[in-house]
Amino acid sequence: MDISELGEFGLIKRITENISLENSSTLKGVGDDCAVMQYPQDNVTLASSDILMEGIHFDLTYCPLKTLGYKAAMVNFSDIYAMNGMPEQLIVNIAVDKRFSVEQIDEIYEGLKWACQNHHVDLVGGDTSSSLTGLVISPTCIGSAPKSQVVYRNGAENTNLICVSGNLGAAYMGLQLLEREKQVYRQQNAEHPESPIDFQPDFSGKEYILERQLKPEARRIVVETLRNAGILPTSMIDVSDGLSSELLHICQQSNTGCLIYEERIPIDYQTAMMAEQFNLNVITSALNGGEDYELLFTVKLSDYDKVKTLEGIRIIGHITPPQQGCMLQTRDGNTFELKAQGWNPLQD
Amino acid sequence: MDISELGEFGLIKRITENISLENSSTLKGVGDDCAVMQYPQDNVTLASSDILMEGIHFDLTYCPLKTLGYKAAMVNFSDIYAMNGMPEQLIVNIAVDKRFSVEQIDEIYEGLKWACQNHHVDLVGGDTSSSLTGLVISPTCIGSAPKSQVVYRNGAENTNLICVSGNLGAAYMGLQLLEREKQVYRQQNAEHPESPIDFQPDFSGKEYILERQLKPEARRIVVETLRNAGILPTSMIDVSDGLSSELLHICQQSNTGCLIYEERIPIDYQTAMMAEQFNLNVITSALNGGEDYELLFTVKLSDYDKVKTLEGIRIIGHITPPQQGCMLQTRDGNTFELKAQGWNPLQD
Repeated sequence: MDISELGEFGLIKRITENISLENSSTLKGVGDDCAVMQYPQDNVTLASSDILMEGIHFDLTYCPLKTLGYKAAMVNFSDIYAMNGMPEQLIVNIAVDKRFSVEQIDEIYEGLKWACQNHHVDLVGGDTSSSLTGLVISPTCIGSAPKSQVVYRNGAENTNLICVSGNLGAAYMGLQLLEREKQVYRQQNAEHPESPIDFQPDFSGKEYILERQLKPEARRIVVETLRNAGILPTSMIDVSDGLSSELLHICQQSNTGCLIYEERIPIDYQTAMMAEQFNLNVITSALNGGEDYELLFTVKLSDYDKVKTLEGIRIIGHITPPQQGCMLQTRDGNTFELKAQGWNPLQD
Repeated sequence: MDISELGEFGLIKRITENISLENSSTLKGVGDDCAVMQYPQDNVTLASSDILMEGIHFDLTYCPLKTLGYKAAMVNFSDIYAMNGMPEQLIVNIAVDKRFSVEQIDEIYEGLKWACQNHHVDLVGGDTSSSLTGLVISPTCIGSAPKSQVVYRNGAENTNLICVSGNLGAAYMGLQLLEREKQVYRQQNAEHPESPIDFQPDFSGKEYILERQLKPEARRIVVETLRNAGILPTSMIDVSDGLSSELLHICQQSNTGCLIYEERIPIDYQTAMMAEQFNLNVITSALNGGEDYELLFTVKLSDYDKVKTLEGIRIIGHITPPQQGCMLQTRDGNTFELKAQGWNPLQD
């Protein structure tokens, strides 16, 4: 169905029907000038907003619309978790050009609603617009946390342990794989334009890295795990631009240095295999590859016994005085300074 | 300066330096994963988000970047005022393509900061991105109001008075004027491509309608005036899509009808003059022209004595039972049903 058949108001009605609100903090969702929220006394309001542009952040050649919607929400939720908060409301602005059918917009919203359901978030509003060229999704997440539990980037202190959840570099390897297959597909169809093929690459054994790229999962479970273990991180950030860049943010804002160990950086088996195939250094991918959406945080040394037993959390180093800089120690005992982009010593 | 010279982090640093926070509700502004807010107990959090696309919502041929930034913020603040709340924080996502220099981005932010300053709003965050084509600005405003003071669209009741602030149709007339001059300019330069002219149309006597289009002002003063007068509207909405459309929203959500009087609809002198020049019906422009950003609200009949003396507020009709429909009574005593778009009986 063509969007013009529905018009703006018809489209909004279609998108927003069947939205149910589950959080007691949501007083008013879609349908007024604003969403209205009320959080418990002593809680603070957290808000974060992203903009995802077609051709920059996603490629519709290989990114299904439903998982794109899912990812847009996750990227946004991840920022709330990174403050040690819980996402509760989501507002989504979307701009589409004439290529898009009503059914395709439905798919994007299915993905958004799926993400909201999995993370107990209410979809409470948004703006819909035409676009002259390309799809734009701009999600804004609102959440909350008890004021005493909010974790900033600037609280790391000397001797704190540096921890990271899950594993790193997988989303970047997934992207490399997708980009390679896209090139293969383009070349094949350029050579035989008379009979374009329905290209179905074999992704078996690579499902994990693809999912990490196309459908990342914001780490609510890490926030819950830390709360249950009675651990309040001293600083936290989500890993969206690569480990190096995020560690530098924490150290700059906390006025500290850090030392992390190459051998402690968690890498999944599929990530390592793919890196070898592509002749890429897997540690570089973990340090500089983006979109992992894991949580990087620091804890007091006195929390060592608690944190070392937590499943899916790896201690990768510790915070040092600022004059020692931000360093990586390799397996062979050398140390290199961490850089925000393109960490040269390990680059192929 | 080219944006690539600064890079994303450099650009963010440039944009965000010199931002000062003035609201006690802002605990953390730019520089972490989220903005952090805390409002007084018994207050609710209000949030609204917009997306403004180049070529759809604005035309850089005649829209200076600074006033565009100003307008983007105002459009967003207006939604908070429409809930009878006060805007307190602004998050702005922006995507720019290669045409844009660092200095041009500075201009957009100058406009955003100017708006924030005038309305006592803290700029607390945002995402910056590349765009393959065109400028996108997506502002999200967060504000608050005492829970008992929040005004929704659905509270209008039979016999309530319908009021509107300022005047209507001016922004639409400003747009018509700008579009006409753009066409003239294009034609002249198409006829003499060898010597493109530096076109300076004479806008004297039309400054007001141009300002209404290019640099609208969200109606904080109306919210303050109502508070000072001890008037709590029963329903409220901001006029962004034209009076008809907004009145229909209130009546649908409140399950009422309405009757408004043509002769009561406030029209500025410049709007009327311009409409005559363009041979457009001025009332149609007020009913269906967008972007006035005035406040449309209903009050109890018992507030009549209070509201009638308020400067800049016009009573234009009253709420009726739902079965009477949403009607306009013309100067000659005929009545017509209000339509959301293209109100035909009055259209030229």
